[in-house]
Amino acid sequence: MKNADYGKLVDKLIELNYLGSAMSVLHWDQEVYMPEKGSAMRAKTLGYMSGLLHDMFLSINDKRLLDRLRKTVAKGKTAEAIVVRDVLRAYDREKKLPKKFVEEMSIVCSEAQTVWAKAREQDNFALFAPHLKSIVALKRKEAKLVGYTQSPYDALLDVYEPGMTSDRLTKLFDELKARIIPLVQHHRKAPTLPKGPYAIEDQRTFNAFVAKSMGFDFDRGRLDISSHPFTIHFHPEDVRMTTRYREEDPMYSVGSTIHETGHALYEQGLPAEHFGTALSESVSLGIHESQSRVWENMIGKSKGFWTYFFPHLKTTFPKQLKNFTLDQFLAYVNHVAPSFIRTEADEVTYNLHVILRFEIEKDLIEGKIDVDELPAIWNAKMKAYLGVDVPNNKLGVLQDVHWSGGMIGYFPTYVLGNMYAAQFYEQAQKDIRGLEKQYAQGKLAPIREWLRENIHVHGKRYSAEDLVKKVTGKKLSADAFVHYLENKYKTTSRS
Amino acid sequence: MKNADYGKLVDKLIELNYLGSAMSVLHWDQEVYMPEKGSAMRAKTLGYMSGLLHDMFLSINDKRLLDRLRKTVAKGKTAEAIVVRDVLRAYDREKKLPKKFVEEMSIVCSEAQTVWAKAREQDNFALFAPHLKSIVALKRKEAKLVGYTQSPYDALLDVYEPGMTSDRLTKLFDELKARIIPLVQHHRKAPTLPKGPYAIEDQRTFNAFVAKSMGFDFDRGRLDISSHPFTIHFHPEDVRMTTRYREEDPMYSVGSTIHETGHALYEQGLPAEHFGTALSESVSLGIHESQSRVWENMIGKSKGFWTYFFPHLKTTFPKQLKNFTLDQFLAYVNHVAPSFIRTEADEVTYNLHVILRFEIEKDLIEGKIDVDELPAIWNAKMKAYLGVDVPNNKLGVLQDVHWSGGMIGYFPTYVLGNMYAAQFYEQAQKDIRGLEKQYAQGKLAPIREWLRENIHVHGKRYSAEDLVKKVTGKKLSADAFVHYLENKYKTTSRS
Repeated sequence: MKNADYGKLVDKLIELNYLGSAMSVLHWDQEVYMPEKGSAMRAKTLGYMSGLLHDMFLSINDKRLLDRLRKTVAKGKTAEAIVVRDVLRAYDREKKLPKKFVEEMSIVCSEAQTVWAKAREQDNFALFAPHLKSIVALKRKEAKLVGYTQSPYDALLDVYEPGMTSDRLTKLFDELKARIIPLVQHHRKAPTLPKGPYAIEDQRTFNAFVAKSMGFDFDRGRLDISSHPFTIHFHPEDVRMTTRYREEDPMYSVGSTIHETGHALYEQGLPAEHFGTALSESVSLGIHESQSRVWENMIGKSKGFWTYFFPHLKTTFPKQLKNFTLDQFLAYVNHVAPSFIRTEADEVTYNLHVILRFEIEKDLIEGKIDVDELPAIWNAKMKAYLGVDVPNNKLGVLQDVHWSGGMIGYFPTYVLGNMYAAQFYEQAQKDIRGLEKQYAQGKLAPIREWLRENIHVHGKRYSAEDLVKKVTGKKLSADAFVHYLENKYKTTSRS
Repeated sequence: MKNADYGKLVDKLIELNYLGSAMSVLHWDQEVYMPEKGSAMRAKTLGYMSGLLHDMFLSINDKRLLDRLRKTVAKGKTAEAIVVRDVLRAYDREKKLPKKFVEEMSIVCSEAQTVWAKAREQDNFALFAPHLKSIVALKRKEAKLVGYTQSPYDALLDVYEPGMTSDRLTKLFDELKARIIPLVQHHRKAPTLPKGPYAIEDQRTFNAFVAKSMGFDFDRGRLDISSHPFTIHFHPEDVRMTTRYREEDPMYSVGSTIHETGHALYEQGLPAEHFGTALSESVSLGIHESQSRVWENMIGKSKGFWTYFFPHLKTTFPKQLKNFTLDQFLAYVNHVAPSFIRTEADEVTYNLHVILRFEIEKDLIEGKIDVDELPAIWNAKMKAYLGVDVPNNKLGVLQDVHWSGGMIGYFPTYVLGNMYAAQFYEQAQKDIRGLEKQYAQGKLAPIREWLRENIHVHGKRYSAEDLVKKVTGKKLSADAFVHYLENKYKTTSRS
């Protein structure tokens, strides 16, 4: 490879990332601090910047830079070859999308999101339906433009989980579904949390303490409030998380804080010196989700973890939690019960919420079902998988923002995250003895460093598939996750 | 004028403003919420975006669009002609600056600001001096590249106060100086504010109440905290202000909130439908400052204003202010006393702080003095104008951020703002009878609407010179401001 060409490429990638990072600041601000009436102009600004980024990205190939580099990297294992291949992969996709298409998508989704918010508030699916139809049509067009072998859904999935196919997903999810549905039957009534209020300021202090204990570096990030919790990185030196609060339930914010801190540790653990290139990027959304889930569930719902943190929580809320025991608290945190809202579901039923969405969106993109049928299909699946009757679309098909934002192919990564997480954690437990005993002493560094060394530091050097194999010695399967759930929910007494 | 060409121009201006607005979000975030270690990458991001904006701005003339438009607008009075002339004015300046020069300036200033902060903290002028020398050299080069008739300083001043010259400023300021220095002798000891603490949360609530009462629309803006108060607009629908707090003195934050709200009302009052063009922009920094100063001083230090707000302040801090009367409070707010720090100076001595800076920076740019002489010159002028002995450079020449940021030619607009403000306010008092009586009843709408109709709605339609003439019937002079100060500080009893 000509070093001069590679140097030029990296310079251009860094510039693109400056612009992308600026857009991320705007997205963050939009969700966290932007005043209400700033939204129309912000949508236009971000729309314009998307088009600019598209143009700038394609212009990398000016003077045939990429064409020259392409010849040199076919199967190379060097860092340079990995970076170049990652750019080519994105470039080959992006160049198939006309700028007008990119802009239209941005505008249609921006409008759809506004309408969706209103439709959800009014429980009015008919209001949202025509917008969702436009999005599905655009997404089908995108799949066609990009190209695919088996299902058009694969062309969309590939953006979020490179290399994954709907065929493979269907097999993984069918197995998971079959083994999880019986587990849901085991659920028992959870103890109720003692009555609050739990002052939000005190919850914030506790959350900051937990995030810091997990290893989040507040000199390189923040924790704010937004209506939907999220983590966004501008670069490894500035990673922003959010959570949300309910005065009557501190775990509503604590659980999401642990989850987001898992994401944020991944971002803060990426090598900053490779900023702009694949070596400083996360592998896939599934791997990203594995980092949040391993902390939220495997670690953050364990007895060891709360042996250390529950006394701190009690110190924060001494009156409210006076007569609540650690065992009662663990039963509360780990209770399983079918519910309507995905984001509030327990770690067992959660997967069924997601699989349902995957099945529906795949059928939509393959043209097997129509948008107008969604409420009926949704409700039938909820009955079949979770045994519940969805009372309205607000608590059903209208609950998630994803489809209105054009994010079709995104949902499966949530369950993939659970599977990756369980498989990684199974290995970590082999590599480090007595993990839970360490948590009980407040020692979270060993597990954090294990995740960092095995996953974070590599950036996108390995594909998700290769990374899982490298770390665990096995291909991705549902086994580890199902074992984890079965062990926990078939044996734990939750009286 | 060909409509198609004008339409193309406006489209491009709007795009430029999207990018500029994105940069403003990054600047705001940097001062308000960015974590400490995000600064290096943020500087690079903004540096890159400055260069991009420079290129994009110059590219407006692709296919000779500007050359064609130039021929059509020579002296036209239409909105289109005004917009085009404003673009040409900026374009003719910008095209003289090589991109490398723009980038170098950005990098040198970014470094200098970091060093300045350290130098100020350590009271170490020698540390900062070499950086300031580089900046002065670059600024002299900028003046040379841009061109000027009399003083190179005029080429820099023109960016902030279009049309103003150092010659004219010198005359205005010399007169002001001569008439203000005697006023400083009249000062008496101010009453001290009752001991606090004044809880910051309560101050924040009070500040929001004052800003809202003044007419600030919180659906189209925010009020946050930063170490140096400022107002920044992304567009008229999203205007952000900041202030800062001291527990022992609520007026430290209230005064700056009133000041920033004056700026923000101007931005919120600009016509949003002309976003991107001169018709939606402020006239000059001097006119901008007039809007903050008229609220902060003429209105916000008046007896009428506090007749309404002081009871609210007392309700907010009932224990602390129990035995403090309105007259005592007014004496506190309006006390005059020489001090070292410009940003904390009263409305009389403030002007001398600024004039001193103008004289120094003008001599620097004209090559009459050297950076190494600054501390001595600064301290000598402070003694001559304010009668004080500056104890160290931290309280002297190192106090302001401006020079380290390359903002030379900016300071004079602070005093111009006072003069414009006084001249506008003199006219407002003629146009609306009994202004202070209205304030006493909490009626701030009449003065706000007067400012909006006479100044805000015009955007940059008139030059500062023409606007003052149009609104007050007179050319800008020091008279109104000196009369205002003399009336207030020669007669008011401040026992």
